[in-house]
Amino acid sequence: MDDTVARRLDELGIVLPAPFGPVGEYDAAARVGDLLFLSGTGPVRADGGLVTGKVGADLDVDEAREAARLTGLQILANLADQLGSLDRVVRVVKLCGMVNTAPGFLHAPAVIDGCSQLLVDVLGPAGRGARSAIGVAELPFDIAVEIEAIVQIAEVP
Amino acid sequence: MDDTVARRLDELGIVLPAPFGPVGEYDAAARVGDLLFLSGTGPVRADGGLVTGKVGADLDVDEAREAARLTGLQILANLADQLGSLDRVVRVVKLCGMVNTAPGFLHAPAVIDGCSQLLVDVLGPAGRGARSAIGVAELPFDIAVEIEAIVQIAEVP
Amino acid sequence: MDDTVARRLDELGIVLPAPFGPVGEYDAAARVGDLLFLSGTGPVRADGGLVTGKVGADLDVDEAREAARLTGLQILANLADQLGSLDRVVRVVKLCGMVNTAPGFLHAPAVIDGCSQLLVDVLGPAGRGARSAIGVAELPFDIAVEIEAIVQIAEVP
Repeated sequence: MDDTVARRLDELGIVLPAPFGPVGEYDAAARVGDLLFLSGTGPVRADGGLVTGKVGADLDVDEAREAARLTGLQILANLADQLGSLDRVVRVVKLCGMVNTAPGFLHAPAVIDGCSQLLVDVLGPAGRGARSAIGVAELPFDIAVEIEAIVQIAEVP
Repeated sequence: MDDTVARRLDELGIVLPAPFGPVGEYDAAARVGDLLFLSGTGPVRADGGLVTGKVGADLDVDEAREAARLTGLQILANLADQLGSLDRVVRVVKLCGMVNTAPGFLHAPAVIDGCSQLLVDVLGPAGRGARSAIGVAELPFDIAVEIEAIVQIAEVP
Repeated sequence: MDDTVARRLDELGIVLPAPFGPVGEYDAAARVGDLLFLSGTGPVRADGGLVTGKVGADLDVDEAREAARLTGLQILANLADQLGSLDRVVRVVKLCGMVNTAPGFLHAPAVIDGCSQLLVDVLGPAGRGARSAIGVAELPFDIAVEIEAIVQIAEVP
């Protein structure tokens, strides 16, 4: 099999983490036709810990962008787990990025770019789609960022 | 007609409430192909009143989880109203659960489980899909929980 | 070509603004089949400036509703840009309206109605679909309202 994305991950020196998995009565993803809806996920460090805190107070923009990148790694790990191969990703259709903001923090798009840039680096143009970014009051376990995704996928040949 | 879900509701002693209905210039749901997009809805008590307040201050986790269960009843009532029979539900594809949080409340997933558990109890595995859960600053009418859903449905035979 | 919606815009005296465009690593929209997912967008005044501030403190409901209307104009401008003609809109399937709320502001639906009403005025019944409305802690650049949309479109004949 021509596992193009796996090769690209190697080139970038990226080893996908284990998917963090659901924290309640839901699944990591659900598919309808060629649309795969991914549950909201968050930033997991290499040591398995979560990146927590308020962006604009506990984390600055660069730290929050790195948290968004780690969340993007979780999205890729979930996709690989669901699909077998990331080559089945046709396009990342939509991201919704929710930033755990301190009052007055207005740069959610710059933060979520940490995820979007990773997806483009790994998947090429297929990693780029529509997006929303907002600042929310609180996130589960105080994670700094939560991102959900809708992904167009190819059927298994 | 073999109305399996209606029988299951009977077994559980659940009588669906009247759907609360839209509070502005929109519809309770919109269908495209086999996807039904349900508008965000909230917790309506048996007496018709809304469950309001900040979770983590005015409501504890158990009270908020019950509010999420009541919101799930509204989702089922809306579905029944849209579809005629809940047997046309193929799968609850995606929930987005928004909790009206007091500062520092970090347990949105445990709250939204009140809805997810109801949907699984009533619909079986079809009630379980992808999900996001977040804490938001304010909700309409100060409702404690708002949940929107995307549901895969079967066409009328 | 029978450009019905363009004629309707003329009748209403509406000139669509230039689309504001993405502010990061994403696209204004992404299409899968007959679904077009539009990125979250915000209120741009005729002079090109953004409508900013907290609804319930810096803006009252009427001012916020006008901000939502301006956001609706951006949605229409984005749609026209993506589709060539607004006649290709089959239906506005789903809006998610996020209001930049001051503490205690509970009228997100009345605010987002400013967008919904515009879409119905311009597109007729096709402008009305499912909707959620919430109050969020912060929005990018302090915009007063952010709205994302899912739109069913017709293929080019």
